[in-house]
Amino acid sequence: MDKYYIKVAMRNAEKSRGKCSPNPFVGATIVKDGKIVGEGNTQPYGQDHAEIVALKEAKDQAKGATLYVTMEPCCHYGKTPPCTDAIIKAGIKRVVVGILDPNPAVSGMGVQTLKDAGIEVSVGYSEDEINEQLEYYLCYITKKRPFVIWKTALTLDGRYAASDGSSKWISNESSRKYVHRLRSQVDVVLAGVNSVNMDNAMLNARGFRNINQPLRVVLDPTLQINLQSAIVKSAKDFPTLILHHSSDPETIYRLDDMGVEHLQIEGQDDVLDLDLVLDVIYERKLNSILLETGNRLSEAFWHQELVDKCFIFYGNKILGGDKSSLRNYDRGGIDKAVELSKIRFRRLKDNVMVVGYPQY
Amino acid sequence: MDKYYIKVAMRNAEKSRGKCSPNPFVGATIVKDGKIVGEGNTQPYGQDHAEIVALKEAKDQAKGATLYVTMEPCCHYGKTPPCTDAIIKAGIKRVVVGILDPNPAVSGMGVQTLKDAGIEVSVGYSEDEINEQLEYYLCYITKKRPFVIWKTALTLDGRYAASDGSSKWISNESSRKYVHRLRSQVDVVLAGVNSVNMDNAMLNARGFRNINQPLRVVLDPTLQINLQSAIVKSAKDFPTLILHHSSDPETIYRLDDMGVEHLQIEGQDDVLDLDLVLDVIYERKLNSILLETGNRLSEAFWHQELVDKCFIFYGNKILGGDKSSLRNYDRGGIDKAVELSKIRFRRLKDNVMVVGYPQY
Repeated sequence: MDKYYIKVAMRNAEKSRGKCSPNPFVGATIVKDGKIVGEGNTQPYGQDHAEIVALKEAKDQAKGATLYVTMEPCCHYGKTPPCTDAIIKAGIKRVVVGILDPNPAVSGMGVQTLKDAGIEVSVGYSEDEINEQLEYYLCYITKKRPFVIWKTALTLDGRYAASDGSSKWISNESSRKYVHRLRSQVDVVLAGVNSVNMDNAMLNARGFRNINQPLRVVLDPTLQINLQSAIVKSAKDFPTLILHHSSDPETIYRLDDMGVEHLQIEGQDDVLDLDLVLDVIYERKLNSILLETGNRLSEAFWHQELVDKCFIFYGNKILGGDKSSLRNYDRGGIDKAVELSKIRFRRLKDNVMVVGYPQY
Repeated sequence: MDKYYIKVAMRNAEKSRGKCSPNPFVGATIVKDGKIVGEGNTQPYGQDHAEIVALKEAKDQAKGATLYVTMEPCCHYGKTPPCTDAIIKAGIKRVVVGILDPNPAVSGMGVQTLKDAGIEVSVGYSEDEINEQLEYYLCYITKKRPFVIWKTALTLDGRYAASDGSSKWISNESSRKYVHRLRSQVDVVLAGVNSVNMDNAMLNARGFRNINQPLRVVLDPTLQINLQSAIVKSAKDFPTLILHHSSDPETIYRLDDMGVEHLQIEGQDDVLDLDLVLDVIYERKLNSILLETGNRLSEAFWHQELVDKCFIFYGNKILGGDKSSLRNYDRGGIDKAVELSKIRFRRLKDNVMVVGYPQY
């Protein structure tokens, strides 16, 4: 039954997806005499972790019970006291842990703390699934950079736009709705200034209740952003950060006035150093980026092998013409093609979504 | 129950798919007192039609029974005597017909003949499904040309080859197996001479038992075919027709010698008149063509809006580069994109197949 209750904990965790960053969204289940007596999921940053929520629900029934938790409980004082203390104090008899927390402040020490207190601990359940569930956090901790997701909408023949530049809409409403959900599950949505100026996109998450809004990051090397664009005009409602290498005081003054945050980083001409871009986002404890970049900027992320996962939405259209996705990301030969691991397909009415992890 | 038994008849029909051309592959079911007493499907050209097979199985039980047949029974002498005669003679009481046969030699007259003999006839069941099941035949009869299917294998970013020209293999084994099945279900597989010379493809159907072999047609305007290619060398085992506008006696002599059929039609430089190509195939009573054409010839079929159905196999690969599918079939704007009706998706391991009907 251990496997089953870990799955229940994973399902609980999903309730917090995109809602407790930079903390990982963990799930917990407390079981006593074959009955679930407490369930929990990580609350927004600074509030209770999943284990605490579950213990609070279980109350006295936690005594002698088994706690299932998708990731190792913390044993350090962060924004909240260590979960291990609460688990020990509640009289939990056994703890079943999905995966260890690679965070150096925990990393096995949470488990050790519990064992030292005489609690039986089992580790390693549904590891592949949990590693995938927590992929943003795990990348953030182990690679010290945010997890990068590339999203694109292509025609059946692989075009991102028609030869006249038009691209509204390649994908259907179901696909676009799915993209809004994706936006609500990441910390950052990132686009280049050309897309922002051309498409006048808002890049926020819409169409769902109780929604997390990502930080909107625009790469705008020489500050060419249209100050009348929707993204600038909505900056007071939806946080927006412009990264640039310009020192144009006039535009900077106007951006300040409109509530747009801006940061000067290294770059040259119309290019910014992407590693620095990821650093800036990492330093802000933002663990995931959804790239809604145009073709040129997408190519740059692919060239630097920074894309961790991709979501390709195929619209029901054949377009022809020269606007082929990733044209300059030329792999040269079929044996050098990039495959996607764990590839998945999902039908969205007359569109199909392909998801996978590039293997460079 | 009429709908149900028509579906049973449709399933019977499938057994003859690709095996009785130029006759449509029809299915029949005879039901008496709620029991199936006879089933049939069209036999190879010149042999029994579906109704006759079912009647032979039902024997005396046909008397007073209901016959379900996917398409209107014939009432004319073709290679075989009219089915209506046999139905009447067997004492069938009621006939349920999926769709009428648009063939002018039948077209409602089959039904009328049965009615005149005092048989109750109902027409119009599962029409959409049967129209699709018999789409090759229906196109052949109503448009007086074969049904044209475009098959292509693309990478996830819409490339038909890498920039160095390599394309083996974009799709996986499951996809390629599916293509062999497709080949066995059509009358003709068609390719351009460049693909034949470059890929040295056999273009026959392999990997299944009891398989129908399509006629292999190569468009080779100026007779450039490599006489050592697999297709030429196998011409004595698998029928092969080369269409050209050349008059090179040397090559023609060699082709004759190797058992390759050839036919001179109109054309100019390295282009043949595609309407004439379809005419030649139509005149041979071949009702369906699977295009396994390279990009340039594919574009020509698309430009002339001759593609009736497409099968796109997406391999799990990202390639980049300039070999984009249908580059010169430029629709210009997103509002002029071609959509596929009745679009369907099928996962083939890590590939996905998209099937649909272009709406020009």
